[in-house]
Amino acid sequence: MKILVDAMGGDHAPQAPVEAAVRAAGELDIEIALIGDEKVIRSELKKYSGYPTDKLTIVHAPEMISNHEEPAKAVRQKKGASVVVAANMLKKGEGDAMLSMGNTGALLASGLLIVGRIKGILRPALGTILPTAKGPKLLIDAGANTNCKPENLVQFGIMGHVYMKNVLEIDKPQVGLMSIGEEEGKGDDLTKKTYSLMKAAPFEFYGNIEGRDVMEGTTDVMVCDGFVGNVVLKTVEGMGHVIGGMVKELFTKNIKTKIGALFVMDGVKDFKKKLDYREYGGAPLLGCKKPVIKGHGSSDAFAVFNAIRQAKQFVATNVIDGIAECLDNMEE
Amino acid sequence: MKILVDAMGGDHAPQAPVEAAVRAAGELDIEIALIGDEKVIRSELKKYSGYPTDKLTIVHAPEMISNHEEPAKAVRQKKGASVVVAANMLKKGEGDAMLSMGNTGALLASGLLIVGRIKGILRPALGTILPTAKGPKLLIDAGANTNCKPENLVQFGIMGHVYMKNVLEIDKPQVGLMSIGEEEGKGDDLTKKTYSLMKAAPFEFYGNIEGRDVMEGTTDVMVCDGFVGNVVLKTVEGMGHVIGGMVKELFTKNIKTKIGALFVMDGVKDFKKKLDYREYGGAPLLGCKKPVIKGHGSSDAFAVFNAIRQAKQFVATNVIDGIAECLDNMEE
Repeated sequence: MKILVDAMGGDHAPQAPVEAAVRAAGELDIEIALIGDEKVIRSELKKYSGYPTDKLTIVHAPEMISNHEEPAKAVRQKKGASVVVAANMLKKGEGDAMLSMGNTGALLASGLLIVGRIKGILRPALGTILPTAKGPKLLIDAGANTNCKPENLVQFGIMGHVYMKNVLEIDKPQVGLMSIGEEEGKGDDLTKKTYSLMKAAPFEFYGNIEGRDVMEGTTDVMVCDGFVGNVVLKTVEGMGHVIGGMVKELFTKNIKTKIGALFVMDGVKDFKKKLDYREYGGAPLLGCKKPVIKGHGSSDAFAVFNAIRQAKQFVATNVIDGIAECLDNMEE
Repeated sequence: MKILVDAMGGDHAPQAPVEAAVRAAGELDIEIALIGDEKVIRSELKKYSGYPTDKLTIVHAPEMISNHEEPAKAVRQKKGASVVVAANMLKKGEGDAMLSMGNTGALLASGLLIVGRIKGILRPALGTILPTAKGPKLLIDAGANTNCKPENLVQFGIMGHVYMKNVLEIDKPQVGLMSIGEEEGKGDDLTKKTYSLMKAAPFEFYGNIEGRDVMEGTTDVMVCDGFVGNVVLKTVEGMGHVIGGMVKELFTKNIKTKIGALFVMDGVKDFKKKLDYREYGGAPLLGCKKPVIKGHGSSDAFAVFNAIRQAKQFVATNVIDGIAECLDNMEE
C-alpha cells in the first residue's frame, strides 16, 4: 500500500509532513510518496538518518496553489501543484490514498475533478471526527457543500455510516440528522424532507439530533448541510481554544494557583488529550473513487502521522467498496 | 413601569418566577404582575413575608400549553393560558414588557399573533446573549425562523444593533454575518445575497464571521438564519455542559486533586461565572411591537431576576422606537 502525502500544504509544511512520513514509513508497514518541491523535501529529509529509503519516495511537484486562487480554476491550470500531482497519481493507481494539509478548496476540487465520484454519489462530503463525551464521532458534511438537497444528506448518512463501521470499527453506527427539535416535524424545509427519506435508508437512523448532541456524542454520525457543519465545527474548535486559554490563565495566575496546578496536572493532560483533534487524524472526503483525506491546516508531525495511519485504515477496510455496495442495495 | 411575568412556565415554576418577582419588586423600582394559577401563586408567595404588595399583583390564568401542542393553534384556542393572558395585557397597555420561561413556540406565537410586529418588520427574531472572550454578545436569530430570506437577515442585523446599543450600552455595535469563510464571496446562496444588502444597511457591518468567532466574541451582533443560530446556541450550551462535567471530574477524582481544587477554587468560580448564561438574562424576541423576553427553560430565581432586570432596560431604553426609526431611515 502506498499513501501519497502532499509535503507542501499546511502551516507546518514541509517539516510536519516530512517528519510524519519518515515515522510512518518506519512504523506502519506502508510506502509513502512525498509530493512537492524535490529540493525542499530533500533538504528537510537530511534531518533524519536511517529511515527506510525503499519505502519513502519523492515526487517532484514545483507549483503551489494559494488561498486566494479560485480552486477549480487553479486545479485545472496548475498541473504541477502538489495536490494536483497527487490526485493524478491516485487516479492512475500510482498510490492508494492521498493526504493534504493544504488549501481545502483545492483538495475538494482535485477530488471532484480528478479523482472523480463513486458511481451514484451526487456530491462528495467532508467528514470530520469530533472528540465527544462518548468518544470520536463523525460530523458530515463539515464544509464541502452548501445548499444541499435531501438526497445529498441521505448519501452523507450512507457514507458516514460505512466510514464509522469500517474505519472506527463500530458495529451498528447510528446516524442522526442535525435539526432544531427532536420530533419528526421539527426543522427547516431541508431537514423535514430528509427525515422521511432517512427512515427508508440502509442505516440505523436515530432521528433528529440537536446542537447539544454534538459534544454529548449522542450518535456515531451527525449529518448536516456543509454550511451548518462548517459553522458547528468552527464553533467547537473556537470554544475549545477560548476555554483552553481560560484554563491556562486559571492555573498560571499566581503562586497559589501554580501550586494547585501540580496536584491536578495528570488530569489536565488527560482532559487536553480527550479534546485534541490531533489524536483523530484528518477529515475524509467521502464519495470520491479513491480515499482522499484533508489534514487540519495547523497539523504538527503527530497529527500528520495519525492522518497517515487513518489513510491506511481507510484503504485497508475498503470504505469505497462499502459505500458503493450500500448505494447498490438502496437502488434495488 | 410594569413587567408581566409568566409564573407557570419553565422547569422551576412557580418557585423561581415567584421568588424572582418578590426580589425584583423590592429592589428594581418597578411593578410586577405574576400571571398564572392564582391559588398556586398565592401559596408560593406565603414563603415570603414583607414584600411590597402594592408592587406585586397576581393575574389569574388557569390554562397551560404543553410542549406537545401546536403553538399557533394552542395560542388561538387557550385564551386562559398564562402566556396568552400576558400577551393580551401587553397589547392593551396593561404592562410594559412580558417575560416567560415556558414553551418557546407558544411565546413566539403569542408575540407574533397577539402583540404583533413593528411596522415594516417581516419576521421577529430571537436574540440570545452569549458569554464570549470579549464579554456578552448577541446571536440573532437563535431559533424563531427557518428558511430565512436575505431581507430577514438584514432586519435581524438592525434589531440586534439597536438592542446592543441601547440595552448593553455599546457605542457602535458591529454586526457580523455568520458564514463559512471571511471573504465576501464565501457562504451559501442566502449569505452571499445578504452580504451585498448588509453593505448598504444602517449599521456598522463587519463582514462575514465564522464559527470560531462565536466564542471569541469578534462582533457585538452575530446574524444568522434561525436554524443555524439554534444549532450554534445548543452546540455551545452542550459543550459547556460536557466541559463543566470534565472539570468537575478532574477536581473530584481523588484526595490529591481535591487538595489541588482548594488552591484554584476562586478561579474556577470566576470561570463558571463567565460562562453562566444566568448572568445575562433572557432572549429578547425582537421585532414585536412591545418588549417580549424568553427566559431559559432551566432558569432558577437568579436567572429570572436578571431577565426581569433586562426587561426593565429593554423598556427604559426604548429599543422598539429605536428599531422603528432605524427602519424608517433605511426606507428613505
